[in-house]
Amino acid sequence: MIKGSVGTVTTHYYHHSSPLVLESGDTLPSLTIAYETYGKLNRDRNNAILICHALSGDAHIAGFLEGEDKPGWWDAIVGPGKAFDTDRYFIICSNVIGGCKGSTGPSSTNPATGKPYGAKFPVITIQDMVHAQKLLIDNLTIPQLYAVAGGSMGGMQALQWTVSYPDMMKKAIVIAATGYSTPQQIAFNEVGRKAIISDPEWNGGNYYDTKSYDAPGPVKGLALARMVGHITYLSDESMHAKFGRSLQSKDRIGFDFSTDFAVESYLHHQGDTFTQRFDANSYLYITKAIDYFDLTKDGSLVKGLSEVKAGFLVISVSSDWLYPPYQSQEIVSALTANEREVRYSEIRSNYGHDGFLLEAGQVNYLIAQFLSRTVVSDVMIRDVPTIEEGATTAVTARRMINLEVNHLPVLSGDGHLVGIVTSWDIAKAVAKNFLWLDEIMSKNVHTTTPDEPIEAAAKKMEEHSISALPVVDADQRLIGLITSDAISILVGRGNA
Amino acid sequence: MIKGSVGTVTTHYYHHSSPLVLESGDTLPSLTIAYETYGKLNRDRNNAILICHALSGDAHIAGFLEGEDKPGWWDAIVGPGKAFDTDRYFIICSNVIGGCKGSTGPSSTNPATGKPYGAKFPVITIQDMVHAQKLLIDNLTIPQLYAVAGGSMGGMQALQWTVSYPDMMKKAIVIAATGYSTPQQIAFNEVGRKAIISDPEWNGGNYYDTKSYDAPGPVKGLALARMVGHITYLSDESMHAKFGRSLQSKDRIGFDFSTDFAVESYLHHQGDTFTQRFDANSYLYITKAIDYFDLTKDGSLVKGLSEVKAGFLVISVSSDWLYPPYQSQEIVSALTANEREVRYSEIRSNYGHDGFLLEAGQVNYLIAQFLSRTVVSDVMIRDVPTIEEGATTAVTARRMINLEVNHLPVLSGDGHLVGIVTSWDIAKAVAKNFLWLDEIMSKNVHTTTPDEPIEAAAKKMEEHSISALPVVDADQRLIGLITSDAISILVGRGNA
Repeated sequence: MIKGSVGTVTTHYYHHSSPLVLESGDTLPSLTIAYETYGKLNRDRNNAILICHALSGDAHIAGFLEGEDKPGWWDAIVGPGKAFDTDRYFIICSNVIGGCKGSTGPSSTNPATGKPYGAKFPVITIQDMVHAQKLLIDNLTIPQLYAVAGGSMGGMQALQWTVSYPDMMKKAIVIAATGYSTPQQIAFNEVGRKAIISDPEWNGGNYYDTKSYDAPGPVKGLALARMVGHITYLSDESMHAKFGRSLQSKDRIGFDFSTDFAVESYLHHQGDTFTQRFDANSYLYITKAIDYFDLTKDGSLVKGLSEVKAGFLVISVSSDWLYPPYQSQEIVSALTANEREVRYSEIRSNYGHDGFLLEAGQVNYLIAQFLSRTVVSDVMIRDVPTIEEGATTAVTARRMINLEVNHLPVLSGDGHLVGIVTSWDIAKAVAKNFLWLDEIMSKNVHTTTPDEPIEAAAKKMEEHSISALPVVDADQRLIGLITSDAISILVGRGNA
Repeated sequence: MIKGSVGTVTTHYYHHSSPLVLESGDTLPSLTIAYETYGKLNRDRNNAILICHALSGDAHIAGFLEGEDKPGWWDAIVGPGKAFDTDRYFIICSNVIGGCKGSTGPSSTNPATGKPYGAKFPVITIQDMVHAQKLLIDNLTIPQLYAVAGGSMGGMQALQWTVSYPDMMKKAIVIAATGYSTPQQIAFNEVGRKAIISDPEWNGGNYYDTKSYDAPGPVKGLALARMVGHITYLSDESMHAKFGRSLQSKDRIGFDFSTDFAVESYLHHQGDTFTQRFDANSYLYITKAIDYFDLTKDGSLVKGLSEVKAGFLVISVSSDWLYPPYQSQEIVSALTANEREVRYSEIRSNYGHDGFLLEAGQVNYLIAQFLSRTVVSDVMIRDVPTIEEGATTAVTARRMINLEVNHLPVLSGDGHLVGIVTSWDIAKAVAKNFLWLDEIMSKNVHTTTPDEPIEAAAKKMEEHSISALPVVDADQRLIGLITSDAISILVGRGNA
């Protein structure tokens, strides 16, 4: 399997002109959602995976935007042959509302005033972000997502999806996240917000029109917020490994208040560059949404997650002290208490919270393992055209052509599978002048069951050089069909 | 043992009018050190304990200042019957230089200009703080401290003392500290400094003259710095226990940027009140001193601590993530590698770094245990006046009076202890007209050894109703004397 890049990509914009009622009761009169997609949506529209981004992320998750040489933020695990395999899945990533990367947020124009919303933008929640994403998914006419996934705040969104729309996905992947924000997380967020609001340049959120070289907006406050945030994304160990007590461009400590240590210089750089790519008001709104995130119900996460239906993969990072493993374990416990299917892994890593982005090897492996645990029922066609035994070759051929199918399972009068006929068999009939279906159909039919792993079914087809397998129940009644076309997208094996 | 308060106390000021050369090479032309003392310095001046304070601490460690109803910052373990037992020890605590609680710092008047130093104050280090404390200890004419102790930055100072002045203390107590500041610690400090310096009211450090209701100095920046700091002093668990997701004075989240959660309100309060009691420039200078703290030598803490002589107690707090237990363990390992006496305890606590202040029960117990492991050699008098056997009663009496002692061990010609004579025996001689020492001295002499715990020696004296014990080596040669006077101060038993 060659791991590749999705190549050059484009950000799309979905304009939704109807109002979105928010959790607060306020209304967003209209909204735009920036999004990117990679891979192809299959005919059954059931191979779509929505990936949700973290606090400062955006829709650009993989590949390269025109003219840029830095790939998307999770390029390491999204692409051909990677865990989020664009040869198999149709990957969607959209920018959250409240953000500043193309979706409607505080820096967007308020249609009521013609000026940027600023602090007049309504407070949004993780649930609101998810509702907005649902509008996009509906617009893409995807009836059900194959999976929803995300790390950090993206993991919160994935979890919120399974609660808000329990029938909308088969699987959910929640990484380095939590079922509710803790006081320590709220505290760090509040420091960041306070830094921005304390900056005189914030000016009550109205700085868009006045931004200039002299008054560049609340960049000092935003840089500070990012510096604090950045410390929480790293671990004590990783900072040791990366910086130790190394000095920055000097041989000895300076005995002044200029930058002494490399770690200081790094933080300054992180803070400064962040102000060039992020909006201070968006930082306020998104951190507030994170603070509000709480899926417990009557204080119980078990109750809060009682209606979810997806199969789960929950991943934590051993050295993550911002969203520590115990918070992932609480999600796992709540799902288990609700008898939901859940797989849990703690990534061994010294990287801290950032491990979910940096430990691409482990994350790739775990997600690929989880997603490829696809079983036949996940991808089989349920409304299978069939033909009754005793038909003529001509009737059979006409049925195939009309329905544009290449295989027709042959059923007995009482619904049992008795054979299968293909266009190849029709060709045989023409060559040999057979008039009856019974003379050309394969009677020794290979079948599969709904619970069989997709890899096993694929292998069976390959071994027997056949391009479809009827799916039967325990009584040998036909309940579906799985084709190499559908599998080829999932398994990435071409015309197996 | 009744645990009590030291009562009403007063802060003293030591003015040192000579220059102090700093580690940077700069000079502080003169300095003032604010300090408090409790308990009594004994006659041998060997029961003094210096306690060093943390970042925002001061000299007021115990008891009550006139007109205040809040006790000193470590009142829970300093006082009669407490671990730092003021009935036994002479406790000293001084404000660090660079601070703003009475000792010379950036808010002090620069003698060269007659204005506050501000940012012209020289950058100081933990070693400079310790050098300044040494001037105070010298001024108090204390030849050797019984112990030096401290938590957090106070622990760093205690450790620095053992390196800078290895002969100046018998014992050292280092709590929740480290042998060198790590990049994570530096990072949090730098965020705090950046918050202050980014505040326009900081004005390059010159805000003392302009402080007013309208321009209150860099209080926003200082409050932010304190908020960040405060998060690092607590633990995730303790914040859970203290705040959970409780709302502040409201029934539901506000969907706005006012204070929603109790934890936010708490942090705001911590930040705001801090600005009323602390100077922003001092925060810059002291955090810089912490960043610079590094006792490793050629990258090795073993080398850095190779010359220390004190017996150590090292304490960490299990949930402290700012100065995690592993950093205390590194100190212990380095001391052990240098074959120094060291006892290590990890306090089981959910309080985080603040546990060293809040877990008074455990800290009291560990410190009391450690300090009371005093052995006879710690408090014995070494230059003991003696008298040779064969002397007359009159000569013996004159020797006692001249030397102002109440006991004279009697030695044989070859230095062996053969008896002891007291003023009581002289009285007996007068009453009964005995002329020779041999007739009145006690020959069945109770003795002790240098290694005997002080409690055992005290018990022996009590049992036999005697007020002094000769200390002998394995050959019964006299090497010292221990008196109930000396012990009474240490053990707090009055005239045992």
